[in-house]
Amino acid sequence: MVSISTKDQRVDAWQKLVDIIESYLEQNQDPETPVVKYRSAQDLKEELELKIGEAGADSNEVFSEISKYLEYSVRTTHPQFNNQLNAGFNFNALMGEIVSFIANTSMATFEIAPVATLLENKLVEELNKSIGYENGHGIMVTGGSNANLMAIHCARNRMFPNAKHEGNPNKELCVFVSQEAHYSFQKAVSLLGLGLNNLIKVKSTVQGEMDSEDLENKIKKCIEDGKTPLLVASTAGTTVMGAFDPVAKNQEIAKKYNLWHHIDGAWGGAALFSEKLRHRIKGCEEADSFTFDAHKLLGTGLITSFFLTKDKNIIRETNSGGGGSYLFHEYENSEYDTGAYSLQCGRKVDSLKFWLTWKALGHKGLQEFVDNQVAKREHLVNLINEHPRLKMLHEPQFLNACFQVLPEEENVDINKYNFDLRFKLVKEGKYLVNFSSWEDGTVFFRHVFANNVTQKEDLNKLVDEIVSLSKTM
Amino acid sequence: MVSISTKDQRVDAWQKLVDIIESYLEQNQDPETPVVKYRSAQDLKEELELKIGEAGADSNEVFSEISKYLEYSVRTTHPQFNNQLNAGFNFNALMGEIVSFIANTSMATFEIAPVATLLENKLVEELNKSIGYENGHGIMVTGGSNANLMAIHCARNRMFPNAKHEGNPNKELCVFVSQEAHYSFQKAVSLLGLGLNNLIKVKSTVQGEMDSEDLENKIKKCIEDGKTPLLVASTAGTTVMGAFDPVAKNQEIAKKYNLWHHIDGAWGGAALFSEKLRHRIKGCEEADSFTFDAHKLLGTGLITSFFLTKDKNIIRETNSGGGGSYLFHEYENSEYDTGAYSLQCGRKVDSLKFWLTWKALGHKGLQEFVDNQVAKREHLVNLINEHPRLKMLHEPQFLNACFQVLPEEENVDINKYNFDLRFKLVKEGKYLVNFSSWEDGTVFFRHVFANNVTQKEDLNKLVDEIVSLSKTM
Repeated sequence: MVSISTKDQRVDAWQKLVDIIESYLEQNQDPETPVVKYRSAQDLKEELELKIGEAGADSNEVFSEISKYLEYSVRTTHPQFNNQLNAGFNFNALMGEIVSFIANTSMATFEIAPVATLLENKLVEELNKSIGYENGHGIMVTGGSNANLMAIHCARNRMFPNAKHEGNPNKELCVFVSQEAHYSFQKAVSLLGLGLNNLIKVKSTVQGEMDSEDLENKIKKCIEDGKTPLLVASTAGTTVMGAFDPVAKNQEIAKKYNLWHHIDGAWGGAALFSEKLRHRIKGCEEADSFTFDAHKLLGTGLITSFFLTKDKNIIRETNSGGGGSYLFHEYENSEYDTGAYSLQCGRKVDSLKFWLTWKALGHKGLQEFVDNQVAKREHLVNLINEHPRLKMLHEPQFLNACFQVLPEEENVDINKYNFDLRFKLVKEGKYLVNFSSWEDGTVFFRHVFANNVTQKEDLNKLVDEIVSLSKTM
Repeated sequence: MVSISTKDQRVDAWQKLVDIIESYLEQNQDPETPVVKYRSAQDLKEELELKIGEAGADSNEVFSEISKYLEYSVRTTHPQFNNQLNAGFNFNALMGEIVSFIANTSMATFEIAPVATLLENKLVEELNKSIGYENGHGIMVTGGSNANLMAIHCARNRMFPNAKHEGNPNKELCVFVSQEAHYSFQKAVSLLGLGLNNLIKVKSTVQGEMDSEDLENKIKKCIEDGKTPLLVASTAGTTVMGAFDPVAKNQEIAKKYNLWHHIDGAWGGAALFSEKLRHRIKGCEEADSFTFDAHKLLGTGLITSFFLTKDKNIIRETNSGGGGSYLFHEYENSEYDTGAYSLQCGRKVDSLKFWLTWKALGHKGLQEFVDNQVAKREHLVNLINEHPRLKMLHEPQFLNACFQVLPEEENVDINKYNFDLRFKLVKEGKYLVNFSSWEDGTVFFRHVFANNVTQKEDLNKLVDEIVSLSKTM
């Protein structure tokens, strides 16, 4: 019935699986391998023929499903995948994920996940040390979006401790983010019952940083309108441009008006580990909370997210309650039960993959890892600046490079041109780099340096390819 | 710097990893292997010596961390682990997890996760077919708690479409669950800004089913008090007793008073696949939404959760918004972008592990899988009923068996006795079975049949051990 269950079957299956994976990884090192075998959804559906039979499939069929999965999935460990804020390869993290799955312990209680609980606590402690939270707290969550949600949830609970029992106070609670902030704040204010109208977008500069003066004006306006300012989120490393909001200035303003100050460092939080970048988040230890995703830059695999707080008790106060009758028993280790203050009940172990990664790199290795990525970004930006057909649109602060390709001919709509060129590049399949747009209609390539596999020569090739492809337009 | 990166290093690492895992799995088949090597948190901390150095660790140290992780983690694939609602082993799911990690594609867009998107859609389609949703919708979420949260979020959006922009309406919105319902509803109403006071606990019968008469009375009372009934959740398979709320009756009441009817089938949703159990959720196709966790009974690994709806559009309407500038581009496949209606942005692929499991079992195999677990429960319940020292506390409807051990001597506090006995059993390490308590102070063993590895002879041993251990008390 179950196709792989005896020891012999497993040994055989391991061998087949490792062969498939190793051949996949080798293909990814070959520049001729397309980063994606593009199919429209409709075509792919027909090709895959997904079907569950009455009788079970044998192990050959299972392996054939696996091969198809890898064949048509985008190759995020390919050096020419620079499209999303997660990419690259890390064998230690892979081993961590496999072992976590084998053990399959849920994070709800120390009793069931003793080692994983201590690992998560240790990672929280190390991250808090990097931030400068001397007596902080934290928990792993289901993504940066979830961490940002938790920040507003905690802020509401601190300002209105009765909200937990009575619901939102009869006031309009306002959350301030920059116009470049991540869209998870929209999801969060909607979910929390605060309403999208109370998510106030603060202006950003041309470099993508929040304009603190506009922040203060908008807070004042909010108060004048009889509303209640609740939280300001400074983004450390915006999604599109990788810009850092002025943390220290925003902190002052938050303090002055009694707002919770959250730092969304999902992407740019890696600046914590880099001598070169650390100054970008100077003063972050004064903020109330911090989002950090290790899976974005460090290749630890989806999802490796943290929500960290300066206050030792606020996460527990905000989230505690329930489960006492069967899950959270009072005994000698009960203060270690993370489920008592999580939004999840059953929770996957996400700590081990990051733990093995960090352990293998060491503090110094982690710093070098981040700084290497910065060096690659500098390399690409130099190429762009030197090329007459390419134009940078900003001065990069982190690991994003936004640029346009200039059409050779006049009277061409540059935005449509860049859109079409990028889609052509993707359909060819050898390179995957994202694009983005601004409200004024500007469309541009957005290269992100989340992929540790990508090397400088790969960037040279990318530039050559874009330029030569543009000649066929 | 990175300790495992070349092909040769990987081949070597794979070998070591597989050896460690296989020896771990073999140990788990040996009845002499303790299911947990119990340490207090303080002792375990000292034993593990968790530390990140300035320099990185070599691969031997990494493997030593892995071995320690497995040594002190609770063995959830051990036949005597029957403590939590996830357990057991499933090699196909393991392969699915490994391959998902290797590909590491985020579910946000079809462009980046083409195969995984179609797989998830296909699983949603199959589950909806099982439920009876003819034109439904669904999405994988971060756990049953998250699915229950989504249900209330969608219900609020349907009743108050303006809430998304304006925040919670100036009314008290009430959510009805049984007193035996999962505590995630507490977390949800708090997070959504509805308040714990508006989570109305409906009485349960001695068998753990919601009392529909009390439900209707409480809805009426809510209306009389000027509040607004929003949603009723019927639990299909309660956490402690595995009871099924009366779905059809609750559906009638929900319809009469215009409430959203949600079914929390996180645990008991597996009844969908069993001829023996299907009648327990008769009428579920009329309900508005359904929570299902494949990781609970089917051994697919944390997390494999679904939120399913009868309405084709409500999830999208409720959750859409944002990300347009850089992520969700309008093009030929954009209707397939699940991120446009998810609460997450980056999202791990959880579909493949369940897909390979279901594919390998087939529809028939899945039914047998569930029915086998029912047969094991029947076996244990027979043992308990036949034993003079053991007493069942309910008539099991699903895969939970709640029972007490009767002290040999008189004048013994039976609740303290069961508590102490269970903790003694856990500290011995050979058996891990949970306990639970009721508000009246009754403490009892709660055996859950989530572990497919456990066989009838293991249950015989468990009963023998409990009884013989009780003689040492």
